Amino acid sequence: MKILMLGGDGYLGWVLAAAFAARGDDVSIMDSLVKRKWEMECGAVPLFEVLPIHRRVSALKERTGHEVRYFIGDVTNVGAIYHVLDVVAPDVVINAAGQASAPFSMRNRASALVTQENGYLSALNVLFAVQRAQRPIHLISLGSLGVYGFPAMDVPEGYITIEAGGRTNRMPLPVQPRSFQQLAAASTSTALAFGCENWGLTITDVRLGIVYGFWTPETAGAAALRTSFYYDAVFGTVANRFGVQAAVGYPLTIHGDGEQTRPFLSLADMVRGLALVVDGGRPAPGRLRVVHHFGEVLTIRALADRVLACARSIGLVSSVKHVPNPRVEPSDASYRPLDGTLRERGLRCAALEETLNEDYFQAILREKDRIDLEVMEKDVLWRRH
Amino acid sequence: MKILMLGGDGYLGWVLAAAFAARGDDVSIMDSLVKRKWEMECGAVPLFEVLPIHRRVSALKERTGHEVRYFIGDVTNVGAIYHVLDVVAPDVVINAAGQASAPFSMRNRASALVTQENGYLSALNVLFAVQRAQRPIHLISLGSLGVYGFPAMDVPEGYITIEAGGRTNRMPLPVQPRSFQQLAAASTSTALAFGCENWGLTITDVRLGIVYGFWTPETAGAAALRTSFYYDAVFGTVANRFGVQAAVGYPLTIHGDGEQTRPFLSLADMVRGLALVVDGGRPAPGRLRVVHHFGEVLTIRALADRVLACARSIGLVSSVKHVPNPRVEPSDASYRPLDGTLRERGLRCAALEETLNEDYFQAILREKDRIDLEVMEKDVLWRRH
Repeated sequence: MKILMLGGDGYLGWVLAAAFAARGDDVSIMDSLVKRKWEMECGAVPLFEVLPIHRRVSALKERTGHEVRYFIGDVTNVGAIYHVLDVVAPDVVINAAGQASAPFSMRNRASALVTQENGYLSALNVLFAVQRAQRPIHLISLGSLGVYGFPAMDVPEGYITIEAGGRTNRMPLPVQPRSFQQLAAASTSTALAFGCENWGLTITDVRLGIVYGFWTPETAGAAALRTSFYYDAVFGTVANRFGVQAAVGYPLTIHGDGEQTRPFLSLADMVRGLALVVDGGRPAPGRLRVVHHFGEVLTIRALADRVLACARSIGLVSSVKHVPNPRVEPSDASYRPLDGTLRERGLRCAALEETLNEDYFQAILREKDRIDLEVMEKDVLWRRH
Repeated sequence: MKILMLGGDGYLGWVLAAAFAARGDDVSIMDSLVKRKWEMECGAVPLFEVLPIHRRVSALKERTGHEVRYFIGDVTNVGAIYHVLDVVAPDVVINAAGQASAPFSMRNRASALVTQENGYLSALNVLFAVQRAQRPIHLISLGSLGVYGFPAMDVPEGYITIEAGGRTNRMPLPVQPRSFQQLAAASTSTALAFGCENWGLTITDVRLGIVYGFWTPETAGAAALRTSFYYDAVFGTVANRFGVQAAVGYPLTIHGDGEQTRPFLSLADMVRGLALVVDGGRPAPGRLRVVHHFGEVLTIRALADRVLACARSIGLVSSVKHVPNPRVEPSDASYRPLDGTLRERGLRCAALEETLNEDYFQAILREKDRIDLEVMEKDVLWRRH
């Protein structure tokens, strides 16, 4: 299968590219590398040194024999995406580009706007590129379960049936984003649905839980293959930050009371699920398929307890510290996302404990000298701009 | 009341500015004039000559004594909107800017993207400007009932209660845009809701029916005060196009079978409703208020029959012609938007016949030599790009 991976230099995109290449797919990467610049702006450095994409691709070839092509190009530049789509002629386009950090999007107006340009406007370019190609491309867009805003309800995969005035309509589930990043993701999902309905495109919108960890079978073998794992307050997911805090004996900083309920997903399971999306039957053209992809659903407090227990089991002792919630988010103890598509295709996600094992903590501790404690606490405030 | 009118050079913005000035409000206009450039690109010319904003403002002062300030500036330029908001220090900001034509947005990729930048990204700039002002500004955003996509149901004002798993949630009504213009409007509405919830802003989202006509009490007296009335296939609403076609005896071109159900609103009623929004109680901060603003709900076929009857009553004879629908739109005979807010405040909208009277047709016929029949038929196709 010919796969074009947009955002292939990123946390998710790189491990996906490595995984599809390892199983024999013909993989091309496109990435603008702008995330590297944003890291610098925020003073954030991935925990493990991340080599330039050129060298990672070379290392992959040395180890597996599989050649991944790469294109340094920005999807916000329509000429670039048109060109790459023409050259690659992919069967599948996976859009893992798009600024994915909620705190980054809330830093200031410029970051809020660049998040729309980088995520939403570029997604429109991808839509136009795919419809222009006039071939049966399966576009797979990586989004966020956060677009729903964590309502106090069971959240089905994308659609609900609304009864009103004695009539029923199957409609998209309402979006209630709680950050400019989720706003961009919500606007993108609405655009994908329109692209399906107007042009008859074939699109799957995979809405992910909060991804954590750095291990995948295809990138575990060599330091040169590592993906960008963040633990700072801007790019680090809460689970990744907790893991690093627990490793070094620093208190796990919980925002507010920690009763926020969130879906989580290990990086390795993220990859396995995407393989099932690529290999599973394509959705019918003309109707956006929405897939929820997550493992466990936990409160932040429960997550902290589980991470602490993982660390303690190998002799690492830490604690928790509650800090005022920098975000504006409603209480949502009754939130529960539903899945179905990937479970029906056989996916069984691992428990947190399988990822946060001794190897995980030992790998973090080997980088102890690189850890910057300050960037873990530089919370972006949702209210002030 | 100090009112800042964004998009004050436009079809809606100008008559609103004139109306608020006429009743004694302190009105400032901000407009980039980019619409004038888009007219040129499409070869479209308003039916009545529209003077530059400078001369219209002068004419308004001569007639009414009221001074309207104007700022030539683009809301997509954040420096410009920050500056104008600082200088004007308004109580109310009415956002009537934003590219409002669905066909324009469907012309090609560039138009689709510029519609997002001009409508959605600029709305984010307005949100940031209003929250930065740290004063109790009432932001009134003009949007479209089209964001819902005309589902086969009664459509309440913005919110529905969804029951799922024995629990209920009051949630925004799902959006299902059918053009890139409606997509920009939908994304904007989602952003407004987030702005309310995150920053505690005070915002009313007025979702309009399809506006028609050119008469308002405040602009009727002088040619120099006329607003931009379009009858072409790109910027002319279906009702305005039908009116001109009926006046000159040209067949009214109906897209498809004409069973599409749409809400309509006369320009004069649009103004009256907005006055009620400005004068009515402000919504509570922190929760977006959605107001539906429309008069009659008609199928396109029924609209054509009514327009033909109006013309016939003063001796003008025309007919209808069905053309293949250039748009991709579902059958929606059961669509019915609901109102409430403006009706409770006393608004009673006039019937189509009150606007399409003898004066209306005579005014059009006086411009007969200016009418370009070709631009009425240059339909933009939804499918091809």
